[in-house]
Amino acid sequence: MKYIYDFEEGNKDMKALLGGKGANLAEMTGMGIPVPPGFTITTEACIYYSEHDGYPEGLPEETARHMEALERKMGKKFGDPEDPLLVSVRSGARASMPGMMDTILNLGLNDLSVRGLAEKTGNPRFAYDSYRRFIAMYGDVVLELKPEGKEERDPFDEILDQKKAEAGVRHDNELPAEDLRDLAERFKAVIKERKGVEFPQDPRRQLDGAIIAVFKSWDNERAIAYRRMYDIPDKWGTAVNVQSMVFGNTGETSATGVGFTRNPATGENRMYGEYLLNAQGEDVVAGIRTPLDIERMKASLPESYEELVRIRDTLDRHFRDMQDFEFTIEDRKLWMLQTRTGKRTGFAAVRIALDMVDEGLITPEEAVSRVDPEGLNDLLRPVFDIAGKEKAEREGVMVATGTPAGPGAATGRVVLFAADAHEQKAADPNVQLLLVRHETSPEDIKGMAAAEGFLTQFGGATSHAALVARQMGKVCVVGCAALDIDYDRRVVRIRRDSEVIEVKEGDWLSIDGTSGKVYLGRIETSPPEIDQVLITRTMKAKDSPVFQDYDRLMKWADRIRKLKVRANADTPGQSEQAIAFGAEGIGLCRTEHMFFGGDRILAVRQMILARDEAGRREALEKLFPMQKEDFTGIFRVMGKRPVTIRLLDPPLHEFLPHGTVEIEEVAGACEITPDEVEERCRSLAEVNPMMGHRGCRLGLTFPEIYEMQVRAIVQAACEVAREGVAVKPEIMIPLVGSRREMAMTRELTVRTADATMAAEGSDITYMVGTMVELPRACIVADLIAENAEFFSFGTNDLTQTAFGISRDDVKGFLPTYMELDIYPNDPFQRLDPFGVRDLMKLAVKRGRSTRKKIKLGICGEHGGDPSSVKICHGIGLDYVSCSPYRVPIARLAAAQAALEQKWRSDRWKDLPPREKTDW
Amino acid sequence: MKYIYDFEEGNKDMKALLGGKGANLAEMTGMGIPVPPGFTITTEACIYYSEHDGYPEGLPEETARHMEALERKMGKKFGDPEDPLLVSVRSGARASMPGMMDTILNLGLNDLSVRGLAEKTGNPRFAYDSYRRFIAMYGDVVLELKPEGKEERDPFDEILDQKKAEAGVRHDNELPAEDLRDLAERFKAVIKERKGVEFPQDPRRQLDGAIIAVFKSWDNERAIAYRRMYDIPDKWGTAVNVQSMVFGNTGETSATGVGFTRNPATGENRMYGEYLLNAQGEDVVAGIRTPLDIERMKASLPESYEELVRIRDTLDRHFRDMQDFEFTIEDRKLWMLQTRTGKRTGFAAVRIALDMVDEGLITPEEAVSRVDPEGLNDLLRPVFDIAGKEKAEREGVMVATGTPAGPGAATGRVVLFAADAHEQKAADPNVQLLLVRHETSPEDIKGMAAAEGFLTQFGGATSHAALVARQMGKVCVVGCAALDIDYDRRVVRIRRDSEVIEVKEGDWLSIDGTSGKVYLGRIETSPPEIDQVLITRTMKAKDSPVFQDYDRLMKWADRIRKLKVRANADTPGQSEQAIAFGAEGIGLCRTEHMFFGGDRILAVRQMILARDEAGRREALEKLFPMQKEDFTGIFRVMGKRPVTIRLLDPPLHEFLPHGTVEIEEVAGACEITPDEVEERCRSLAEVNPMMGHRGCRLGLTFPEIYEMQVRAIVQAACEVAREGVAVKPEIMIPLVGSRREMAMTRELTVRTADATMAAEGSDITYMVGTMVELPRACIVADLIAENAEFFSFGTNDLTQTAFGISRDDVKGFLPTYMELDIYPNDPFQRLDPFGVRDLMKLAVKRGRSTRKKIKLGICGEHGGDPSSVKICHGIGLDYVSCSPYRVPIARLAAAQAALEQKWRSDRWKDLPPREKTDW
Repeated sequence: MKYIYDFEEGNKDMKALLGGKGANLAEMTGMGIPVPPGFTITTEACIYYSEHDGYPEGLPEETARHMEALERKMGKKFGDPEDPLLVSVRSGARASMPGMMDTILNLGLNDLSVRGLAEKTGNPRFAYDSYRRFIAMYGDVVLELKPEGKEERDPFDEILDQKKAEAGVRHDNELPAEDLRDLAERFKAVIKERKGVEFPQDPRRQLDGAIIAVFKSWDNERAIAYRRMYDIPDKWGTAVNVQSMVFGNTGETSATGVGFTRNPATGENRMYGEYLLNAQGEDVVAGIRTPLDIERMKASLPESYEELVRIRDTLDRHFRDMQDFEFTIEDRKLWMLQTRTGKRTGFAAVRIALDMVDEGLITPEEAVSRVDPEGLNDLLRPVFDIAGKEKAEREGVMVATGTPAGPGAATGRVVLFAADAHEQKAADPNVQLLLVRHETSPEDIKGMAAAEGFLTQFGGATSHAALVARQMGKVCVVGCAALDIDYDRRVVRIRRDSEVIEVKEGDWLSIDGTSGKVYLGRIETSPPEIDQVLITRTMKAKDSPVFQDYDRLMKWADRIRKLKVRANADTPGQSEQAIAFGAEGIGLCRTEHMFFGGDRILAVRQMILARDEAGRREALEKLFPMQKEDFTGIFRVMGKRPVTIRLLDPPLHEFLPHGTVEIEEVAGACEITPDEVEERCRSLAEVNPMMGHRGCRLGLTFPEIYEMQVRAIVQAACEVAREGVAVKPEIMIPLVGSRREMAMTRELTVRTADATMAAEGSDITYMVGTMVELPRACIVADLIAENAEFFSFGTNDLTQTAFGISRDDVKGFLPTYMELDIYPNDPFQRLDPFGVRDLMKLAVKRGRSTRKKIKLGICGEHGGDPSSVKICHGIGLDYVSCSPYRVPIARLAAAQAALEQKWRSDRWKDLPPREKTDW
Repeated sequence: MKYIYDFEEGNKDMKALLGGKGANLAEMTGMGIPVPPGFTITTEACIYYSEHDGYPEGLPEETARHMEALERKMGKKFGDPEDPLLVSVRSGARASMPGMMDTILNLGLNDLSVRGLAEKTGNPRFAYDSYRRFIAMYGDVVLELKPEGKEERDPFDEILDQKKAEAGVRHDNELPAEDLRDLAERFKAVIKERKGVEFPQDPRRQLDGAIIAVFKSWDNERAIAYRRMYDIPDKWGTAVNVQSMVFGNTGETSATGVGFTRNPATGENRMYGEYLLNAQGEDVVAGIRTPLDIERMKASLPESYEELVRIRDTLDRHFRDMQDFEFTIEDRKLWMLQTRTGKRTGFAAVRIALDMVDEGLITPEEAVSRVDPEGLNDLLRPVFDIAGKEKAEREGVMVATGTPAGPGAATGRVVLFAADAHEQKAADPNVQLLLVRHETSPEDIKGMAAAEGFLTQFGGATSHAALVARQMGKVCVVGCAALDIDYDRRVVRIRRDSEVIEVKEGDWLSIDGTSGKVYLGRIETSPPEIDQVLITRTMKAKDSPVFQDYDRLMKWADRIRKLKVRANADTPGQSEQAIAFGAEGIGLCRTEHMFFGGDRILAVRQMILARDEAGRREALEKLFPMQKEDFTGIFRVMGKRPVTIRLLDPPLHEFLPHGTVEIEEVAGACEITPDEVEERCRSLAEVNPMMGHRGCRLGLTFPEIYEMQVRAIVQAACEVAREGVAVKPEIMIPLVGSRREMAMTRELTVRTADATMAAEGSDITYMVGTMVELPRACIVADLIAENAEFFSFGTNDLTQTAFGISRDDVKGFLPTYMELDIYPNDPFQRLDPFGVRDLMKLAVKRGRSTRKKIKLGICGEHGGDPSSVKICHGIGLDYVSCSPYRVPIARLAAAQAALEQKWRSDRWKDLPPREKTDW
């Protein structure tokens, strides 16, 4: 078994084995781009370590051989007291996990060789700077001194701050060599004090510890949380990259930086990045010193800048996608340390994909496959209400500007600690929070997820906060230097000219992630541009580049996808929205939502409380014209598009009156006593209403209800048909679980429809089908299909019944389940790809065995979730249906599912569907 | 397509096509037994008629051809005015449906031929008696004059009673010829008056109408209700038997009767039956005149009696089972009109099966297959408490004696109308009722089901009441002549010597269906003999023939069956009972049942209301010794038999206090305020508790609960093991639905068990497995089986989740569903053979794919239902588990399932599993 590959041996297609970083370092090496030599220990070695808690046989020897080769290549010896070979040790998993894994630089230094390095380079400041960095990283990562919580500070940071204060300097690069040497000593002392061990002087022991630390970091809490969030299998493991060091901290002709081949926030086709002179590694990303715009390198290091621009062009064209790269300049010599596909906002994703098509780099199909469907939310994210914003500007509450790093507008109450944000959101899911911090770090992930947006004092567009904002689709403004955050007193002071404005935790603040502006107070948000073009028509398409990009991409997606996309809509207004977003029909129109409107609820209650069928019929007669009107409205909007209307589903007690006022009102209307009303309410109460007297069980026990609804649907259809519209109602029976339920409700429907059409003297075409939402319905789907022309999977209830979990009652255990990774994700958010999917697949197979052309769709909330759309495509449904706002996402996801099937491309091999063994 | 078979063409194996009656008439014809010639129209013709509402093509012509052949055979012409051929038209389905289908006798008579018959026979009384009977039957059945409800009387009966009053006679056989002729005229007049049509004079039209009426009777309400009750598929249809008439009403040398080859109540090997002189057809069964014991025929018609005894022997041996037969004697000539396997009590079934083995007629295997498992309930039915009965005899409240027709003892409140019994039982399921009537009829079925027993004034052991009692397993006393029932005043008068005792509706009465005795008042019942032998040990085995029969049969069954049978038991006492009834282990021991006992509930509540884990642990420590004691007790009783113990399953709120007193008590114990208790109770309330925070979800969120339970189980097992008992605990995790749930609860269990064994210094063997009760668990059974050594199907919850039906909330629709035949039976009573079974089958297949030797069982209540046991055998489970009292039934059902598989015999071909197409 070969566990180690030199950079010369690999290429970009070996990500599964070498991790993303290792594979791309190899690729760049092969392309002739300057990369410091090194080698990669494979992910297989990591998995072996994770499973056996020890190295695979032969790995130490193999490492030693590759180190010797590296020594030969570099002409230096590892541990040489005069001119030591130094290496970095970095993790690198198959999927990018930024900031999650640990890195160690300058490995190989010890008390002896640091002196050699100082002499050899004639730069003792550089040598001791490197050494103190190495000791701190080693202490944090290998010896686990890095604190986990927010309360405790990193002991090395504390000592550094102390030292800076003693020296009277602001930044660490201002510290002279002797201070740095002293820092190294103090660092070693704190290790001895805290861990009772000496900092290891043997480079081989250092390397060994570092490799194990990287292996172990795969199973640390943050990494596991990240994997859960981004659906990365535990079995992938991380590779370890051992690479000879180059130094950005040898002086003012050295630098380190990060960049993107295109702008990750806007997509603009221009190199974008930041750098720091005389700095090393993580300094840029960590946001310790605010880095400089990369354009400024043109002046300070012109040759390096020119070379970087050339390499940027090469990378962008070679990888045919926007790259996120790291580089170091050592004494004017440029070295590339990493390249990978860059994370981007939804805005940028669309922009870059379209540009690359225009540049001839990719095909429209590839463009469609490049945009994360959820990223479309960026284009559909609220902007500040124009009046509100103008008023804010007029009133002078625009108080600061930072770097825009996550588009959209957000308003919320200031919160200073991520843990507090997490808690407050958990306590009240409706609370709007704005996380304001010096900078954010991987520990803050949960709190960041809870906030509407982030505002940071330090860091640039590539800082952690900006990165996470792009991934999570949050509004974000970074590097807002006017802020001064006092964590102790829990206030933010904002300097504006001479004035200092104090904002307390809990006060409202608003940020614009597109412009970078920060406003005091709460500014209302208004619909996104796309809405303004498509729905409110307050904007013309030609005036909105966002809309034009969206429209171009969606047209391509529509040509590719096989799945039709419908929307769930209950009113004419929602139906109009749905069409604007591209819905090709209504997949779920819930008739009972109409029951609550206006004075209808009184008639509904009269119906429920009636003593007998005659009483029910009388109340239903009152409801009939209103119900019919609902349908005529929807039919007129939808035209010849199909409209699936579900007959009454919820248990009757959901409509009952609460409280004495309502009860008395109903009693009056029904001419019975309030006591009788209460008695009837009590008798209708159920122990488990989700599994009670609802759905077709209502329609079969009180057929007059479904009769009224069918009559209303068919009469409405006849009326609209007479206006010249080829209406296509699809009448859907809920909660069917057996053959006779379907047969009898179908019979009732057809009989009522025939009578209604005869009375109307019109003839319309309609379908009768069912919502498949019970496990038994999936199993006897062949029997049900005898009388059902379509199935629409109601995956909300199907998930509830398959898991035996009431969605209303998960609070007691779902948080624990997610934390313990019992469920890798919430099955109500993403369609369970094992249990529920297998049931659906069975239903598809058995349903088609009876009725080959049965129409199959999904109308549960999963219909708008991309991973669920993929499942629906995979099992061969005809359409998905989701809320109007998710229709574009579903359209794009459907196109990607079709492409995946067509290509079985590397992209998908790289992120395969979860394996059967998973949960 | 051949739709008609002459009796000479068929045999007993053609029941599916010819119906039971037709096939056996053909068989007897083939055996040389005297059967009046005739033919059978097949069940296929009936199904065709039912589906198309019309005859299949060619049937009328085929009927005409067979009628001509019959004319030739009999030397008479159909419709001949001088000497007419008369026929009977009787229905005959594949399964016996006594009293459910309609029959017409004497068909072919009209105003002209009745005179010819009178002249030809020289017996005008006979001719007009036959004619008036024919007109009445035709009017009732074909022209549908028979009333459905209890209020209305049959118009023909009313006229007959009037006529008898006018003539001053008590019985219809006392009416002279002219009165009978007048009756015929009046009957025709009432037809004309009520239906506006003349009674048809053309014999061919009469025959046509009769055949259609039989076809239609297949779909009448009574027939459908009967089919639902006895699980007879709608698609079977009924055959129509057209047979030349023989007459039991030609005078005092003629008779008609019914009999059994053995006693259907006790099983005694002696002909048993009743007859009436000068009577026809239904008179015996209908109970109009009280018939005579068949022994008395020896004196009045000795030759016929001798021949009947010979035929009885032949039939009993030929069919190798007890037969129920009908015969008619016309002028001393014996004709057999029907034979079929006779219904019998459970007592008789066991007795006959054992006797036939001893007689060398059948094998022990056949004997096992002959006893309906539910029939064992007869042997397990209560008898009167001896003290109570002695007291009753002493006090002289034994007031009458009738014919014992359904064994066991019953006590209840008198009710006179079946419809009232049905209503009262529906209103209060605990009410005990005794139905007291002149006689019962098929319309009374529902009310009879609602009563503990029946007591009738008229009718014998073959009357409708006796028949139904045997089928339903009800206590029954018939033909109690001392009764005088006044339906109008709603009282029963009992004549005892000169005294008349009045019993009002609602008063208590007790009957002994084994002795036929009737007692005033309520006599407590006591356990059955088998209990007294096995459990209370108050009786010796040798003193109880019932026990000996039971024991012999069960030993055979145990040798045959493949399924093991366990019991569900929660206490040492129940465990002892279970063993007495033959349980081979405990399949379900519910730990939470123990939580309610004594002062434990307070500790349980303390645990639930604890503020934190420490508080919970403290309360759990209090529960620990009690819980451990429960298990030591059970382990000691069960010895080396396996004991499956389920860890805590129900949601915690089930244990919470209700009402201020309990709340204050708990508040005191927990040292918190009552308000806090109430607040906590509110916060634990769930919308759908069945699908809420329960099962392993509790164990994973509060691991300390399962830890305590596992520790108690293992410590108890260690203690009992040290006493020398090879305990076999099987620890069962409830409500598992995913791989990690099982993996983590298993890990917790093993860790706790290891620690406990280490502390005890003992080592026991135990298993860890899960209850499979969620659809998702069935689907991912392969993943769950990685960590589960056994599956036990919890079919109660699996039925709830597969159907999406809460058992607590079915009241609103299940009655309607049963009535409309949407569900052919209650899926909580009988395992759903399509949906739930398919899920189980999938789980078995997938579970075994991971763990070949996984132990598979069922512990839902279905485990004691014979049809469900058959399914469990079919899908390859290892055992079933049910309540202790149903263990014998499960043992027998398991043996029958094994025999069915071995034989695929006629018996099972005749009653095949329902077809996939059914629901």
